[in-house]
Amino acid sequence: MADAAMDKGAVRRILDSAKAAGRSSLTAPEGKEICDAYGIAVPQEAVARSASEAASLATKMGFPVVLKIVSPDILHKTEAGGVLVGLASDDEVAQGYATILANAKKYKADAKIDGVQVQQMLNGGQEVIVGAVTDGSFGKLIAFGMGGVLVEVLKDITFRLAPATKDDALSMLDGIQAAEMLKGVRGSEPVSRDALANLIVRVSQLISDFPEISEMDLNPVFATAKGAVAADVRIVMDFNPAPQRHRPSQEEILASMNRIMRPDAVAVIGASAEDGKIGNSVMKNLINGGYQGKIYPIHPKAEEIMGLKAYKSVKDVIGEIDVAVFAIPAKFVAAALIECGEKKIPGAVLIPSGFAETGNVEGQDEIQAIGRKYNVRLMGPNIYGFYYTWKNLCATFCTAYDVRGHAALSSQSGGIGMAIIGFSRSAKMGVSAIVGLGNKSDLDEDDLLTFFEQDENTHIIAQHCEDLKDGRSFAEIAKRVTKKKPVVMLKAGRTSAGARAASSHTGALAGNDKIYEDVLKQCGVIRARSLRDMLDFARGIPKLPTPKGENVVIITGAGGSGVLLSDACVDNDVRLMAMPPDLDAAFRKFIPPFGAAGNPVDITGGEPPATYKNTVKLGLEDERIHSLILGYWHTIVTPPMVFAHLIVDVVEEMKAKGIHKPIVASLAGDVQVEEAAEFLYDHGIPSYAYSTEIPVAVLGAKYKWARGAGLLG
Amino acid sequence: MADAAMDKGAVRRILDSAKAAGRSSLTAPEGKEICDAYGIAVPQEAVARSASEAASLATKMGFPVVLKIVSPDILHKTEAGGVLVGLASDDEVAQGYATILANAKKYKADAKIDGVQVQQMLNGGQEVIVGAVTDGSFGKLIAFGMGGVLVEVLKDITFRLAPATKDDALSMLDGIQAAEMLKGVRGSEPVSRDALANLIVRVSQLISDFPEISEMDLNPVFATAKGAVAADVRIVMDFNPAPQRHRPSQEEILASMNRIMRPDAVAVIGASAEDGKIGNSVMKNLINGGYQGKIYPIHPKAEEIMGLKAYKSVKDVIGEIDVAVFAIPAKFVAAALIECGEKKIPGAVLIPSGFAETGNVEGQDEIQAIGRKYNVRLMGPNIYGFYYTWKNLCATFCTAYDVRGHAALSSQSGGIGMAIIGFSRSAKMGVSAIVGLGNKSDLDEDDLLTFFEQDENTHIIAQHCEDLKDGRSFAEIAKRVTKKKPVVMLKAGRTSAGARAASSHTGALAGNDKIYEDVLKQCGVIRARSLRDMLDFARGIPKLPTPKGENVVIITGAGGSGVLLSDACVDNDVRLMAMPPDLDAAFRKFIPPFGAAGNPVDITGGEPPATYKNTVKLGLEDERIHSLILGYWHTIVTPPMVFAHLIVDVVEEMKAKGIHKPIVASLAGDVQVEEAAEFLYDHGIPSYAYSTEIPVAVLGAKYKWARGAGLLG
Repeated sequence: MADAAMDKGAVRRILDSAKAAGRSSLTAPEGKEICDAYGIAVPQEAVARSASEAASLATKMGFPVVLKIVSPDILHKTEAGGVLVGLASDDEVAQGYATILANAKKYKADAKIDGVQVQQMLNGGQEVIVGAVTDGSFGKLIAFGMGGVLVEVLKDITFRLAPATKDDALSMLDGIQAAEMLKGVRGSEPVSRDALANLIVRVSQLISDFPEISEMDLNPVFATAKGAVAADVRIVMDFNPAPQRHRPSQEEILASMNRIMRPDAVAVIGASAEDGKIGNSVMKNLINGGYQGKIYPIHPKAEEIMGLKAYKSVKDVIGEIDVAVFAIPAKFVAAALIECGEKKIPGAVLIPSGFAETGNVEGQDEIQAIGRKYNVRLMGPNIYGFYYTWKNLCATFCTAYDVRGHAALSSQSGGIGMAIIGFSRSAKMGVSAIVGLGNKSDLDEDDLLTFFEQDENTHIIAQHCEDLKDGRSFAEIAKRVTKKKPVVMLKAGRTSAGARAASSHTGALAGNDKIYEDVLKQCGVIRARSLRDMLDFARGIPKLPTPKGENVVIITGAGGSGVLLSDACVDNDVRLMAMPPDLDAAFRKFIPPFGAAGNPVDITGGEPPATYKNTVKLGLEDERIHSLILGYWHTIVTPPMVFAHLIVDVVEEMKAKGIHKPIVASLAGDVQVEEAAEFLYDHGIPSYAYSTEIPVAVLGAKYKWARGAGLLG
Repeated sequence: MADAAMDKGAVRRILDSAKAAGRSSLTAPEGKEICDAYGIAVPQEAVARSASEAASLATKMGFPVVLKIVSPDILHKTEAGGVLVGLASDDEVAQGYATILANAKKYKADAKIDGVQVQQMLNGGQEVIVGAVTDGSFGKLIAFGMGGVLVEVLKDITFRLAPATKDDALSMLDGIQAAEMLKGVRGSEPVSRDALANLIVRVSQLISDFPEISEMDLNPVFATAKGAVAADVRIVMDFNPAPQRHRPSQEEILASMNRIMRPDAVAVIGASAEDGKIGNSVMKNLINGGYQGKIYPIHPKAEEIMGLKAYKSVKDVIGEIDVAVFAIPAKFVAAALIECGEKKIPGAVLIPSGFAETGNVEGQDEIQAIGRKYNVRLMGPNIYGFYYTWKNLCATFCTAYDVRGHAALSSQSGGIGMAIIGFSRSAKMGVSAIVGLGNKSDLDEDDLLTFFEQDENTHIIAQHCEDLKDGRSFAEIAKRVTKKKPVVMLKAGRTSAGARAASSHTGALAGNDKIYEDVLKQCGVIRARSLRDMLDFARGIPKLPTPKGENVVIITGAGGSGVLLSDACVDNDVRLMAMPPDLDAAFRKFIPPFGAAGNPVDITGGEPPATYKNTVKLGLEDERIHSLILGYWHTIVTPPMVFAHLIVDVVEEMKAKGIHKPIVASLAGDVQVEEAAEFLYDHGIPSYAYSTEIPVAVLGAKYKWARGAGLLG
């Protein structure tokens, strides 16, 4: 069944005939035919003309079966003894055939008998639902859930982009809350994962091959140890799908983005010498930020602005311009944008507000059309601009930012952008870029992914968004990028209240959050649940080397921290290693007799620096351990900075030997632990004072990424 | 049924006879009798001797019913046509009676007919489970869940302390994930909440009245629109229950605790003049901390320690001593404790480790017995001691702490205690007390609750614990205390990994976390999910006035923050008010035309201080709004400190008019927002930089408390 061919021609004929007839849904027989064409099992049926034929048909379709007399002269089949159910072997079927014929003769001696219908009987197993929908952002999605109340009441359903691979399909079987039911409960046999996954794959292929199939419901599907059969099929078509969003090729995107994000020449349209003007702030940020490329102020009258020759139009500039930053009112944007197009500037940073977010949808449509016509990529409008620290580029009117590093962040909202700047500065998070996306009239998250993927200064990408205008594109690109670099997303509007707020904010229709949840995971994107999580992940993940495996050990001076750290491991899917006896014995050598080995390794409070040092060293040296979580307890015997220095020393010593494992730390103590945490963080060990959960969440995020990227084997 | 008497005598007879017979479980008929005695509905049955009697019996027990021939001469009832099912009216029953008798006659003319059994037929409705268990810590608990896979696979079950009130029982019906099923799904009728709640109440009363009933299962219970009937009852007894933990009366606890926590005279057993000794640290902390009561150093040889006269034994001290702080090795504790007992000191603070936590269970049992014998309450052993700031009392060897305030915190673990100290100092959280509970050989969380309840310096109580040795006591006291003061609990060992770590840490058996979850909620305790949450709640909750109602409005300058704040409201059960049209119009007057009113009120970025001021003022003045969440976006038009000052001014202005509502704020901006957040916090407005979730979590915790305490009406 898994390898059965998919007969596209047969499906095409059925869809075409439905379209010709002006129908938007298919009849049950048509649905069955389509399933047959794609190797999606439906209850089989055939007419036998002899007992042996009935037996062989039944054997082929699988037991049990139902037998029904086929005769134009017998209307009340049951009354005539013409129906037998639950026949479970070829012998029973053969005998049943004879019985039915004999009963029919008895009932009506002269009845014309055409044969006996053999029909596969569905019962037992688990009732599940397989469905398909067309999402405005993500396109074709395949859905899977358990039948009945589990889907209806508990919404226990999971989605994947279609077409789904066999692995995707198998992950769906594990991706519902009630997954255990498929493994057999109350003594029932486990269902065939293979058969069910194949059915999911085939349905997902069908809706991908035929975009006009907008919805599909296989409900229920009977999943048993032997197979998966759809008892009922509903197919709905939409022959006038929404036009696809324009997508340049990856090469085109990259060519523009490299010039926009790392420009050698910037024009400031609306540059101003007047304090308080946006065009003045942008000029100051560019010049004072230390940007070394060419800066062309554009102003209708000025000869010179802040010591630089000014131009009336970008067209008056002799050299090439890579990006134009707009600091003029909305109403003047279109005309200036045309000039940018004529000057062949690949990108426009549209700071001005007053477009779709204020109801001026036509204005936004207009500039969008100009951008498309002249091939000018648009960032915004309604944004703070962007930063690219490695070029000392501060193309924004906001506070300057210059702490170079390797995290690239973007936000759909200006406020969140400012929070990113503040946190980054305060936490000394090195940043490669911060980008405002605002109304996303053109450039969006996937354009940024395409750029940051190959930007050598960027090691992690973190994005705040309220919607993905083209989730399908994002997903496809994210799947590729996450194999190389971690991608974190804070998807706002998770809840219905949040979604309402989002739609009043940007006019974006918030998607079903469960779809985002599942698709982001399918693409290997780490989802942040809160703003602080996104910021902590962006800061911490790049500090950690990629773990070589799942075995994590907690070493703690505070037993109480050990318990909370263990809780946090479960919450963040960080897997505590079962401690092998020899390793347990090795740890015990270093800790007091009343300390607890196992995992956590509880070295007990009041231990001298040597105990921390010996146990951490052992944890790093033993190859079976892949990551460490440290719980420090402030005592006078091992003060915070002593602990911090000794840990950094051990880590450096091990690095010199080629050993480099992820370590995070939770510091419990008086305020001196804050300095110790900062010192540790600066030395590559994400550490947090007064928190047992954040360090583990950061490690967990690193693991999520590594798993998604297939780096843990 | 709700008011049916409960026949204790009948139950007592059945249990006694089972006990006499050496049985630990009951037979089905015994179970049925017990249910009958307590008005717990089971399928009814009776024998009718005439058609009209059958009809009247059936009418009494409710339709449908089953009729079965009762005859010693008819063994195969069905074969004899002696069984009829699903009779749905009195007519059908009367006719059925006649049919059965006729059939019986036909089957065996001379059969002796004793009558026809009329039996209530259970079907339709929802299958649910009601159960009872005896928990080692919480004692009798009642459980409720949906039948089948929902309990078995999804563990969708909820617990309450028994006996449960009708309100408790009703809250259980809403407390499962699949609660919607009880309201009628797929066109089925909603079940009778009243009948189901009454059944729960009665079962909970039964197990409370008869402690020897250790387990009970009513599975399934058929819940319909008309009633709730237990189809199967299983009862297990334990006639040798574990002895109850000793509990002094609340008056006794209070008398001791007031002397221990606010002592006028402290003895330091093992006081020392030698730097680095614990007995020296304690002395320094007491003296340098500014404690004004008497301090008696106890030392076998010294004449004087740190300028204070030393004594060989507490018994040599002339005056009363309220508490003795132990700073001597474990092996000397017992003897010194006896002297404390003889001196009638009400409390001993046992800093020494080396007891149960190191395997020395006998040692701990010994001191526990001494404490009981002499009526000395024991804090610890294995603790850092405790702080009571309003007495300048630093009875610990840890870093000194003196920032007075109104949060009382305790921890089971020393490391977590140090984290509490560090955070409190760093965040300038005023503290009334910090207490280490360690091994909890005697004093535990509920003793602290009893003390803090009436301590005028304490406005909130936050406790970290790994287990509750006497959950029942805690729950009973917490129920009372939470009506007056918020109680926050960080229960460590939530997860199975955490529980394993907890048991290696303190030897405590971690309870089923779902039990903790439900019982804490039943008692009005706010559960913190993480250490940081506990600390933030302890800091923030007392700052907020108690809200007068559930209507919360978000006012934000950053639309993006509004979306994230809305998400956080849903996550934290903070309820966004549906904005009345007149209020919406009133807000719109103050915001730009493209701003979004509704809720969140999006005043848009770049607005001057007046816009924040006008909208916040309106939010405070309108009586329909009960709490505000502010989202600030850092701009040059309204810089962070300008925002902070204007908000504090508006709040003060309103306070002068008698208006005082909870306000929290999320600040998005560059690092200056940190100072603004601190300023706002100092002025009673819990505010966080770079976080949209923490301020809402704090407000949500205040709401949880107010709801539990019945303050929201």
